[in-house]
Amino acid sequence: MSASVVATSSSAGLAARLARSLGADLLLMEEKTFPDGECYVRVPARPSPLTVLVHTTYPDQDRRLVQLFLAVEALKGVGVDRLVLAVPYLAYARQDRRFLEGEPVSVGAVLRTLEGLGVDALVTVDVHKPESLHEWLRIPHANVLPIRELAAYLGSRVEDPVVVAPDRGALHRAEAMARALNAEYDYLEKARDRVTGEVTVKPKEVDVAGRDVVIVDDIISTGGTIAEAVRAIRKEKACKIIVACTHPILVENALVKVYEAGADMVIGTDTVPSQISYVSVAPIIAKALKNKGGY
Amino acid sequence: MSASVVATSSSAGLAARLARSLGADLLLMEEKTFPDGECYVRVPARPSPLTVLVHTTYPDQDRRLVQLFLAVEALKGVGVDRLVLAVPYLAYARQDRRFLEGEPVSVGAVLRTLEGLGVDALVTVDVHKPESLHEWLRIPHANVLPIRELAAYLGSRVEDPVVVAPDRGALHRAEAMARALNAEYDYLEKARDRVTGEVTVKPKEVDVAGRDVVIVDDIISTGGTIAEAVRAIRKEKACKIIVACTHPILVENALVKVYEAGADMVIGTDTVPSQISYVSVAPIIAKALKNKGGY
Repeated sequence: MSASVVATSSSAGLAARLARSLGADLLLMEEKTFPDGECYVRVPARPSPLTVLVHTTYPDQDRRLVQLFLAVEALKGVGVDRLVLAVPYLAYARQDRRFLEGEPVSVGAVLRTLEGLGVDALVTVDVHKPESLHEWLRIPHANVLPIRELAAYLGSRVEDPVVVAPDRGALHRAEAMARALNAEYDYLEKARDRVTGEVTVKPKEVDVAGRDVVIVDDIISTGGTIAEAVRAIRKEKACKIIVACTHPILVENALVKVYEAGADMVIGTDTVPSQISYVSVAPIIAKALKNKGGY
Repeated sequence: MSASVVATSSSAGLAARLARSLGADLLLMEEKTFPDGECYVRVPARPSPLTVLVHTTYPDQDRRLVQLFLAVEALKGVGVDRLVLAVPYLAYARQDRRFLEGEPVSVGAVLRTLEGLGVDALVTVDVHKPESLHEWLRIPHANVLPIRELAAYLGSRVEDPVVVAPDRGALHRAEAMARALNAEYDYLEKARDRVTGEVTVKPKEVDVAGRDVVIVDDIISTGGTIAEAVRAIRKEKACKIIVACTHPILVENALVKVYEAGADMVIGTDTVPSQISYVSVAPIIAKALKNKGGY
């Protein structure tokens, strides 16, 4: 069955690769901003009844979310029967529970809104807590991780590396990357010296002295967490330190912070356009669409 | 039954007046912005099971819409049973149909989202096409017009005025204002001279020479439409020209444009904070809540 890939400007490159890989035609959304600041989108031609909309929601997140809502409304209004949505970076995914009473589950509001507007299936990339998707969606959904793609890019650039997660919560990601690199893995642990009270951060088990280290995380936002991890690894006298993330949000001078902390290379994917979006998630999104997205 | 009025910073003044008029307690939403630009809201205390949320959505509309969605999610999550929402200015209300194939009905997407997130009743002020509300909402809703409030403010400032709508579509508003002022009304009509081809804009029937004129419209956005109307009336040698609108959005130098065109006074309401928000819509929102909002 023929299909269309519809892209907004936020994800045009990724969408084009996806269309090519799916053998689908590519349609670029018309976009503009009214003088009062409201945004406008329009589907410039009639897409196939089976359509994949590709739209990422990096900063300005609120503008991009509203664009997304309007794009979904427009596509359902122009006769798309089955609308599969690919959101490479899902904004508000980190507010995935009520940490304090009175807070919203922001990601829940976003997901329910997308479903309510008529999205039939959702593909996301490395959402902070994939459980959010199960919790808030009734439509089919798939969350893909670009671990093997990042590992392939690193392949020849590191030698017998140790993969390190910046905290225990990210250990599963380090484990997956270690498997892809056939390497050891560990996570950084904070320890307080009982006598001096000094806090040290270092890998829980593996001695990284003289070794190449790959630090993996889902996102680099302000760069604070990652810079701290790099400094800790540098202190342990590692050889080469490479940072690999899925979403290079890179708020302000985040990249400078991470390099200044002692990183040798920082890489990310094209879920978010950036200076370090070296690895494309188009192949894994295409695969998910073929397997699971009901595509 | 006791009730709470919950306000975001966008409508705190209006909400405070509303709370006073309803005898309800007032709760101000906690708000912040994360370093990556995502917004955060939190209900700082447990509101009454019957709660009125007041939140307007003037520019930056997308930010304010997302804040609104999150605020609704938070309030439903903290145990509000019946959530009545008052949106003094509803963004995207002018994209109320598919003017071209492939466009979204943006206001439809906004209204369906609010309903989907759990809003139980909606009060709006002077929505561009109130039919949009009937079309897209299943929950109870009321749309109130501040015509009598604007007229009361004008009362002693004009003498035997003519109320003029800038186009035929706004005639019902001019008629209502004329009734409140016990005045004549008319609308501006474009006419093309069959010989010279020259286009003139003037009141269709009433001669406004030497008379006070009140121009009414729902919104002043860029000020273009209103400035043109003021110039046309000025050309007809009117005495005093007063412009009254509900929503003083006032993009950039809109107000300067309207004054430079020859207006003597420009007034609006507090649905949108502005330099000319002289008239409060708190009393008519309170009335609607008491009558219709299920309050």
